[in-house]
Amino acid sequence: MADESSPELAVENVRTAMNPAGILWGRRAWELLSLVRARSPLVQCITNFVSMDLVANSLLAAGASPAMVHSVHEIDAFTPRCDAIYVNIGTLSESWLPSMRAAASAAVAASRPWILDPVAVSASDFRMDACLGLVALRPAVIRGNPSEILALSSACRFSDSKGVDSSHESTDAVEAAMSLARTSNAIVAVSGAIDYVTDGQRVVGAQNGVPMLQKITATGCAVTALIAAFVAVDPSNPFEATVCALSIFGLAGEMGMDFARGPASLRISLIDSLHGLDEQNVASRVIVSPMP
Amino acid sequence: MADESSPELAVENVRTAMNPAGILWGRRAWELLSLVRARSPLVQCITNFVSMDLVANSLLAAGASPAMVHSVHEIDAFTPRCDAIYVNIGTLSESWLPSMRAAASAAVAASRPWILDPVAVSASDFRMDACLGLVALRPAVIRGNPSEILALSSACRFSDSKGVDSSHESTDAVEAAMSLARTSNAIVAVSGAIDYVTDGQRVVGAQNGVPMLQKITATGCAVTALIAAFVAVDPSNPFEATVCALSIFGLAGEMGMDFARGPASLRISLIDSLHGLDEQNVASRVIVSPMP
Amino acid sequence: MADESSPELAVENVRTAMNPAGILWGRRAWELLSLVRARSPLVQCITNFVSMDLVANSLLAAGASPAMVHSVHEIDAFTPRCDAIYVNIGTLSESWLPSMRAAASAAVAASRPWILDPVAVSASDFRMDACLGLVALRPAVIRGNPSEILALSSACRFSDSKGVDSSHESTDAVEAAMSLARTSNAIVAVSGAIDYVTDGQRVVGAQNGVPMLQKITATGCAVTALIAAFVAVDPSNPFEATVCALSIFGLAGEMGMDFARGPASLRISLIDSLHGLDEQNVASRVIVSPMP
Repeated sequence: MADESSPELAVENVRTAMNPAGILWGRRAWELLSLVRARSPLVQCITNFVSMDLVANSLLAAGASPAMVHSVHEIDAFTPRCDAIYVNIGTLSESWLPSMRAAASAAVAASRPWILDPVAVSASDFRMDACLGLVALRPAVIRGNPSEILALSSACRFSDSKGVDSSHESTDAVEAAMSLARTSNAIVAVSGAIDYVTDGQRVVGAQNGVPMLQKITATGCAVTALIAAFVAVDPSNPFEATVCALSIFGLAGEMGMDFARGPASLRISLIDSLHGLDEQNVASRVIVSPMP
Repeated sequence: MADESSPELAVENVRTAMNPAGILWGRRAWELLSLVRARSPLVQCITNFVSMDLVANSLLAAGASPAMVHSVHEIDAFTPRCDAIYVNIGTLSESWLPSMRAAASAAVAASRPWILDPVAVSASDFRMDACLGLVALRPAVIRGNPSEILALSSACRFSDSKGVDSSHESTDAVEAAMSLARTSNAIVAVSGAIDYVTDGQRVVGAQNGVPMLQKITATGCAVTALIAAFVAVDPSNPFEATVCALSIFGLAGEMGMDFARGPASLRISLIDSLHGLDEQNVASRVIVSPMP
Repeated sequence: MADESSPELAVENVRTAMNPAGILWGRRAWELLSLVRARSPLVQCITNFVSMDLVANSLLAAGASPAMVHSVHEIDAFTPRCDAIYVNIGTLSESWLPSMRAAASAAVAASRPWILDPVAVSASDFRMDACLGLVALRPAVIRGNPSEILALSSACRFSDSKGVDSSHESTDAVEAAMSLARTSNAIVAVSGAIDYVTDGQRVVGAQNGVPMLQKITATGCAVTALIAAFVAVDPSNPFEATVCALSIFGLAGEMGMDFARGPASLRISLIDSLHGLDEQNVASRVIVSPMP
């Protein structure tokens, strides 16, 4: 009903328009999604085994082209041909780490953005060391959950200061994200009920999403892959691309809830919704708020 | 209709109450599922590539926390922090076997239960040898299909007796399961139209489930992972935890059938149902029968 | 309504009956699908990580038995027991290649058909070299998308002629497929809006399918696995088996569209439809056309 939906639309627009940077986030998200659909950026994914299916299908549904290429023998030939590279350490092993390093280096050498998902970085020293080595290779964006960002941020501070850093270890994930962003020169996103994104100075909160996403494996991996696709089409604005990708994925989850009976059907309807998102829904329903 | 469903409910309760051990299996299954939901046990999964997605999503839907960590470099740091460990040899390779062994050893050293799924154990000597080595590391539970349990049970008897065992090779999976349970000191479950569970003395049959589950890859892997989660919250009663996990998964399949058009939609609705199971359905519909 | 459906049925039959070889493709596809369901051929799959779930579930839904066995230590014991072998290089790495070669060789030695999916063959020299080595091991069928078949066909001509081949490099995928079929002695299928199948002389077009399949990862891998199952039950007619498998998968996609909201739900409904296909739909809706 037009009479009913119009006022709501107006309210939403006011909320998105309130951003101090003057960005109409819904419009921006639609622009970037449209670019992904139009250009179909090639995203090389070196990701964990659990997530490969959802990552590939999420990228396809959004209009991007996933390429699951991980052999170290293919990095030189293949990585520079990609528009973005996604590295995820979820099922890390010694044999995969050289490929991750080589792909990150090749990406930077070819001026391609690469994105890091530091899954379970505090599970072991092996994983943390691997992750610190990757952070040093200059990812454009790092996205993790609060405990991952807290652990990585703390380790990076320690690592930077040769062990004499006396700064307090923050237990606040947003502070930790800001610190990590400054240390790494990457955009840092920390997922949660609200997804916070920071470049070390600015912080905004992407509010779209539903709690049930946490009951589906690899949704975090999938949204990080989507960030890679969004950064691929606008590499000079990784902050905005990250905010928009998180918003789009969260919105697809919200719209998918209408067709979901539980986490497994939500996984299906989320991808369907991601594929079918239209301008009106994106422009009116994306909600991004500034941090006070 | 209350008038129609009540008598059926009563009949079901009588059937579940008939267990000679005096266990009301429906109540017990609900208790354990509630514990899994409340405690969210961390289950390390070293499982085959085909099953990772379904295993992780099944654990999440049941309320547990899956961790797909398989590098041998992470076992020492990570395995003792887990509440249970799940080892599945489905896509076994030489490079993964040391991790499986190390995780099993670390689990036992830390008094954590670990569960073995001997997928396709008779496919090759390589696989059988690997499996015998793992059985020697004292799994709390072994679950397989009849041919797997028959093959493993036979090999264990042979292995135990240095090749001079003259006992007849049983072709009956339940007998084989009982023999394997005695040899290995593990609870052994053998899946089929009825899932039998034995500790070498007792045998019960978990009757929930639907035939179409066999048309979905990795449902056996997923239910074994669920056993790990259930044993994690009641490690002193692996027999009961195994029976209850099999019942809960089978019941989720039954309830999922109402929303299924075929095996792929059943896979979705099974997980949805597992996530949404309530006390009334579990208490009234779980059916476990004693072996005569 | 019988009055409405009968004329349509008649028209379809005329179209399928028009094949110059006199094959009623709908009937033939139903015969082969029925054989797969009756015999449940064991198909060893050495396939990429992304595709394993969909490959296994597609084979199960069609009635076949998938076995994801890839360790080089299991080839000798296991491969000869299989009815067909499926090799897919999607996530190729150095550690997997020896298994692929060994399985292909063991298949040929045991007179078992093996099928090759040369995913992204032009991504690197490493991949192309691996693929050329596999083609030399005599696959019964090769299926790829146009760019894969073009690249592989061109490389095979070059490889065959020690570098002095002066034949023009075709940009037409069907010509390339015919050339590759003659060079390799394999049936070659090239997927697209119409799937073309050739033995180097004959070419037919399997017309079933829907565009949205391209938005689902690993559907190409899954249909190649289905080809393996179909060739397994009629190894002396790999041309017909390939055409029929492509038709059946495409038809399942068409029928799945009735239950799909987007690519993720299509993936589900496709598998459901594959499982439920009946004689009337297969016989009347399969459309295969001769090349002019």
